[in-house]
Amino acid sequence: MATVSEKLPESIDLSHHLSNVSKARPLSPLKGLQKYWGRPGLISLAGGLPSPDYFPFSSVGADILLPTSFPTQAGTSNGAFSWLWNLFSSGQTDSISIPRYASKPGDLDLASILQYNMSSGHPKLREFAKEVTDKVFRPAYSDYAILAHVGNTDGWMKAVLTLCNPGEGVLTDAWTYPSALACMKPYNINPVAVAMDGEGMRADALRELLLTWDAESRGMPRPHVMYTIPVGQNPTGATMGAARKKEVYDVCVEFDVIIVEDDPYYFLQEGPYRPKDSRNSLRQHQLNATQFVEELVPSYLRFDYQGRVIRLETFSKRLDAVWVGSLAIPCLQSDWKGKRKPRHKLHVDSASKWGLDGYLRWLQGLQNQYIVRRDYLLDCLADEFDLRMGPAPCDVDCFSGCDVYTAYPKSNRSIMSEKQRLTDEPLFSFVPPTSGMYVWLKLHLDRHPKHGMMNYNDLELALWKELAEAGVLFGPGHMFAADATVQEPEDEGHFRISFSNAEFDDLKKAISIFSRVIAKFFRPSK
Amino acid sequence: MATVSEKLPESIDLSHHLSNVSKARPLSPLKGLQKYWGRPGLISLAGGLPSPDYFPFSSVGADILLPTSFPTQAGTSNGAFSWLWNLFSSGQTDSISIPRYASKPGDLDLASILQYNMSSGHPKLREFAKEVTDKVFRPAYSDYAILAHVGNTDGWMKAVLTLCNPGEGVLTDAWTYPSALACMKPYNINPVAVAMDGEGMRADALRELLLTWDAESRGMPRPHVMYTIPVGQNPTGATMGAARKKEVYDVCVEFDVIIVEDDPYYFLQEGPYRPKDSRNSLRQHQLNATQFVEELVPSYLRFDYQGRVIRLETFSKRLDAVWVGSLAIPCLQSDWKGKRKPRHKLHVDSASKWGLDGYLRWLQGLQNQYIVRRDYLLDCLADEFDLRMGPAPCDVDCFSGCDVYTAYPKSNRSIMSEKQRLTDEPLFSFVPPTSGMYVWLKLHLDRHPKHGMMNYNDLELALWKELAEAGVLFGPGHMFAADATVQEPEDEGHFRISFSNAEFDDLKKAISIFSRVIAKFFRPSK
Repeated sequence: MATVSEKLPESIDLSHHLSNVSKARPLSPLKGLQKYWGRPGLISLAGGLPSPDYFPFSSVGADILLPTSFPTQAGTSNGAFSWLWNLFSSGQTDSISIPRYASKPGDLDLASILQYNMSSGHPKLREFAKEVTDKVFRPAYSDYAILAHVGNTDGWMKAVLTLCNPGEGVLTDAWTYPSALACMKPYNINPVAVAMDGEGMRADALRELLLTWDAESRGMPRPHVMYTIPVGQNPTGATMGAARKKEVYDVCVEFDVIIVEDDPYYFLQEGPYRPKDSRNSLRQHQLNATQFVEELVPSYLRFDYQGRVIRLETFSKRLDAVWVGSLAIPCLQSDWKGKRKPRHKLHVDSASKWGLDGYLRWLQGLQNQYIVRRDYLLDCLADEFDLRMGPAPCDVDCFSGCDVYTAYPKSNRSIMSEKQRLTDEPLFSFVPPTSGMYVWLKLHLDRHPKHGMMNYNDLELALWKELAEAGVLFGPGHMFAADATVQEPEDEGHFRISFSNAEFDDLKKAISIFSRVIAKFFRPSK
Repeated sequence: MATVSEKLPESIDLSHHLSNVSKARPLSPLKGLQKYWGRPGLISLAGGLPSPDYFPFSSVGADILLPTSFPTQAGTSNGAFSWLWNLFSSGQTDSISIPRYASKPGDLDLASILQYNMSSGHPKLREFAKEVTDKVFRPAYSDYAILAHVGNTDGWMKAVLTLCNPGEGVLTDAWTYPSALACMKPYNINPVAVAMDGEGMRADALRELLLTWDAESRGMPRPHVMYTIPVGQNPTGATMGAARKKEVYDVCVEFDVIIVEDDPYYFLQEGPYRPKDSRNSLRQHQLNATQFVEELVPSYLRFDYQGRVIRLETFSKRLDAVWVGSLAIPCLQSDWKGKRKPRHKLHVDSASKWGLDGYLRWLQGLQNQYIVRRDYLLDCLADEFDLRMGPAPCDVDCFSGCDVYTAYPKSNRSIMSEKQRLTDEPLFSFVPPTSGMYVWLKLHLDRHPKHGMMNYNDLELALWKELAEAGVLFGPGHMFAADATVQEPEDEGHFRISFSNAEFDDLKKAISIFSRVIAKFFRPSK
């Protein structure tokens, strides 16, 4: 793994990125008074805090799973999941209870966690997020801040509104997370798509875009902020390695771009897919915490010697969904504090109760669950379609550089002649993801009888509706296009399939329905 | 109570208020597809939701207090609080437990509440907030939306960023909540102070300000959004009655201003203060829900026949602190959904378990607690100072229209001649608040020996520091000034005292220290 130890950190002047903030925020009139806050023995009648006596809970408790709840070895067949269902009735849990008032100072209690708190987040949460950042993501510097947010989209919204003025643009992956765009568009901050290949955003395309930027014809100044999902990219599933990250970072240094790294799938790095019958080299042993961390691709933080990376860290995809995350931000001049509400939640205490090692052990088990799910979905595709693997075609797109699986209708091979095989028509292609929750299908709509009469978008939608009518929902591809410049070739459409949530029987059933519907869609006469 | 039943609702065009939103947000590409979401029997592989099997909780539980935990009759002496402390050890609680999966459909379970959800909030929370809004705040129309937020400052931030462009102004009370200003200032949206009297914002001052608005000299267009805290105003404690609200509303109709009502102290309406020895007319009976609601001043929603009131409702000051609230907003064209993260929390279930009647019973007990606290603090002031009540002075300020208590140093009256009394010098004045958590002191700094040599701000700060050194923190007055135009007369300073949180013994001790410090401060030679 690349490191940045050979380069000394240097600081950059970010004030021109922070035009909103630096323009208006006055010095706090409380400057010089804050030293009195929290002094022992002081009676404070200054704040507007309700008394904890009036909180309606006398205690809150939970049964939390042990960090070892999920095994770290991949199962190899459907039957191997049965232990999962057993788990939840077997009571392998640990009880925690949080009293209204702690019996000793420093312990968590409801009087503290239900009370108004610092807008940057509860100290216990920030401590834990800092430990994760220091030991797992390992930034090249120590003077960064951890700020709590209520989820990565919230963190992103606060970042983009702090860093950008209305009328500006944000560099994004060509295909990207629609909610990240939805929250900035009302402020007239618009996405600028950067071309992708099989590793995600292309450094050469980024450089070319910035180098040839013409503010007048573009109607906006050259963007100075980037939003990117580097691991298990949403929707394409692409994962960016260390070398590419370094290249992208260097372009950002050259053109003074702040990178906002949205990384919810970081710990869901599932590794390469191998078809069922050749799946013999799966990891058989549990890794220790150090080994587990070393196997993960590095965060952009590892390459950041200038303090231009803001990392959106989340617990949502890993513990539960609508909870907190944190934001690692280099120590800038801006005062972020006024911009966010206090946020801290119980469940982080379950992670901090586990400790970092326990959290990493939990993540390793969780990673394994996603390996099983990813493999299961792809096995279903292999069962229902004739999958043929080959290199990506010459045109550069989000499959470039990867081995591509192309799906053909399954037929009885024993009676199919070689000639039949050659005249077979491909239905869709995909690259097995090595991280995250998604398989990104490219639909070969050029093979559809109505190709040329309907545009690909309407064809994609027509297939999507037929699937929905048959009882299956996929993510429609066009909703992930960053902007109107992300023109799909006329002969393509896309679907995003998520393998994160459905029960295994439903996954199987869904792919079986898909197989029937897409065959009929492409050959409606049959 | 005034009603708006005589006027038919009419709708107004808010599109010009919503410039950010209407400018940029495209139609969703999912239009027409949404009917498929949630159809029974569908297998969805469309979303990026983690499986609830991976949430680390197998169950979450809490011991919640009964709605009847606090009595509804005011105690009359310090000793009357002892039951309060007994309460928490006496186990008058009800246990709730939320399982991972509900045993019957519609029941709350962790699989639902810990999962990603609609950005407008969990349906159970919104149902409860709608019931409170319909039955307690009673808007004149039914076509309004309830949106969840993570606290009123968060709700306000989302409202102001949706309604205002950078460079615009927001009408605020002359003295107001600093965090509401802090979150808009970074976007170059600035407060425009409106003069107050003893009922809060003055309708005549508001009209004059808007009527004579000169965009050029002001450097901004005429404001079209108002931020106001109408009940237990922070920091002045003022509470606005129905007639004034109607007047302010009418001015907002005339000048097309959207009112954002931040109302966290609504249920803490304590009623008039009576000194200890004349406190014989206190409520002796519990009110039923209808009576309790009828005794409260009406929300701005009651007068809103055009859909120009956005109410920020909170549970924070009433149940616990850092939790959710909701936002009642007339059904506008804007799509607020993209702007907020899903938010919903366990504790709302405790309120919805109680039901609306239980919640109102809880609030009635809570209101009583604040009556006791308010009375106790004022009694402490009466014990430590010689309080003399009289009408407000002629100059219009935030005491106008109210009976004002002025505090003099206490002396042994039996040996004090009438002449001594007349030459006595006032230390500070206040109006006993009828709602909320705060007493707003006006300091008579003109009586300080250094008056004329130091400005009031430095004098206020000097007294604040002496108090802090002696072990007591009050809220420094100048931090609540909405803008630089809120010039205090040169002879005044202010402190805000909060009676919401401190233990009673500490309140007493704090006022005793205050008495000693302020006496020494005004007569340093003695």
